[in-house]
Amino acid sequence: MAHDRAEVQDPAAGRPLALVALSGGADSLALAAALAFEAPKADWRAGAVIVDHGLQQGSAEVAERAAEQARLLGLDPVVIRGVQVDAGAEGPEAAARDARYAALCAIAADTRAATILTAHTRDDQAEQVLLGIARGSGSRSLAGIPPVRGVIRRPFLGISRSDTEAACAAQGLQPWNDPQNQDLQFARVRVRQRIMPLFEAELGPGIAGALARTAEQAREDAEAFDTMVDEQIEEIVEPAEAGIAVSVAALHANPAAIRHRLIRRVAAAEFGSELSREHTMSIAALVTDWRGQGAVFVPGIRVTRSGGRIIFSRQIGSPRA
Amino acid sequence: MAHDRAEVQDPAAGRPLALVALSGGADSLALAAALAFEAPKADWRAGAVIVDHGLQQGSAEVAERAAEQARLLGLDPVVIRGVQVDAGAEGPEAAARDARYAALCAIAADTRAATILTAHTRDDQAEQVLLGIARGSGSRSLAGIPPVRGVIRRPFLGISRSDTEAACAAQGLQPWNDPQNQDLQFARVRVRQRIMPLFEAELGPGIAGALARTAEQAREDAEAFDTMVDEQIEEIVEPAEAGIAVSVAALHANPAAIRHRLIRRVAAAEFGSELSREHTMSIAALVTDWRGQGAVFVPGIRVTRSGGRIIFSRQIGSPRA
Repeated sequence: MAHDRAEVQDPAAGRPLALVALSGGADSLALAAALAFEAPKADWRAGAVIVDHGLQQGSAEVAERAAEQARLLGLDPVVIRGVQVDAGAEGPEAAARDARYAALCAIAADTRAATILTAHTRDDQAEQVLLGIARGSGSRSLAGIPPVRGVIRRPFLGISRSDTEAACAAQGLQPWNDPQNQDLQFARVRVRQRIMPLFEAELGPGIAGALARTAEQAREDAEAFDTMVDEQIEEIVEPAEAGIAVSVAALHANPAAIRHRLIRRVAAAEFGSELSREHTMSIAALVTDWRGQGAVFVPGIRVTRSGGRIIFSRQIGSPRA
Repeated sequence: MAHDRAEVQDPAAGRPLALVALSGGADSLALAAALAFEAPKADWRAGAVIVDHGLQQGSAEVAERAAEQARLLGLDPVVIRGVQVDAGAEGPEAAARDARYAALCAIAADTRAATILTAHTRDDQAEQVLLGIARGSGSRSLAGIPPVRGVIRRPFLGISRSDTEAACAAQGLQPWNDPQNQDLQFARVRVRQRIMPLFEAELGPGIAGALARTAEQAREDAEAFDTMVDEQIEEIVEPAEAGIAVSVAALHANPAAIRHRLIRRVAAAEFGSELSREHTMSIAALVTDWRGQGAVFVPGIRVTRSGGRIIFSRQIGSPRA
């Protein structure tokens, strides 16, 4: 009996916890409401975490208002976490994102949450794919936002932003409109406000869905190639006097898609260099277009061909890419 | 001596022939001039072929003017070929393209040309990738315009349209401005005139190059996967009573990227069906999400799982996709 009463007193015991990452915007507010509704049916606990980036005036009030909405939805626990966003090398958007995900992972550990849900929609995915296209760096950048990454799950990737707005309206929830979503200094906002509407007008209303399908297929492709590279890389790479050697025969035997990824993997894993396509191709030419040419220099790495091997060595005096 | 004189009388003997596909527009006029300049140095003969689609008033005059320009550049032979464009199921652009390439291949055979050069530029490639993105059908549609296909070669795929215009101006060549390039009923023209300029303005001037890189990488990826599917398909497919059977174990052992391509290959090769991603996924679910579900129906095909095999059979009474 005492044991039974303890269970009644601690209904949380044994039930997994899902946290929604809540900004107060329509997407995450709709997800918070959906989680509050669905979790009890699946015998999960449901909470919310609000990350206050401290980048905008009044951000503490915005966070507190979102927390209050979460409590009214019945979510528990509701955690507000302030983060420090440092100006990163990759710009303010990347720095804020890195700080946000570090905080989410820390909170997942603190609360022993099984998962954290973020409310990225199909429209976010479409925008991400267009930004990836603008970089032109292949299937990995076309793959967009992953549906699962570590403890993060993104159940709304197949749902449109307008559906989340409609869901909030239907439930009488007042979303917060982040002024940063109107700030055209951000490439993402320009894609959302200027490029996507024109794309839809000129090429048909299905464009967001088409971009989301592109992302799914690019993700599958990238994962398949990653696995193939994983399976080969240990076998074909060996330490060399001045760095790392890769078998010419092995690189030659692979199709270009895998050969180029093997080259990029060696550069990234051993030298911390993210090679451009042009640099990757100049190294691949040592394999496929060999005319006795000399060393190829790419950021941070000197690459030569010698005795049936491609030798990667650190380029002295060169900054890391 | 007689032998020597014969060679002088027929300087064409033994020298390969390259033909430029000439519309009279800036791109193909610049290519015609480049070919006229380069071919003698490589000991090739250089000619031109002008396809008259007969779709616009005065098309015969446009063709004759382009032919005259080709002759003035020293190209020989110069062939004008009229084609009949039938209204095709895929629309007027596709029908005109099919008729054009059929004529080019026929002329290559007639003239024993070793190759036909078309003047597609990096901008055409970027537009093609954007149109492929709008379809959302994966690496094959992102791969854009192939640099080589049969006898066709496209040496300008890395060159911008503005460079071809500058080349014409520098050489005093007056290109023809095709009014169809201003006709906004064509998706390609809307991409060129409305989407690309906005893309460049909002995401930077390198967008055409980024799209061209995307095409190159998507082509490599598609070719690698095609080869992998080629290598497997014979082994894992066998005739079944009602159609074609594929091993569940083999489909399961592959990554999703290859599994989905194997499924699409069977549907295309055996039933002439081009499966959408949604249809492909519904068949894949018989492999990866098997809960005893019944037959899956996709255009023209009934698919079931039975005894460790996925059975594809023609769907009675269904039109072919």
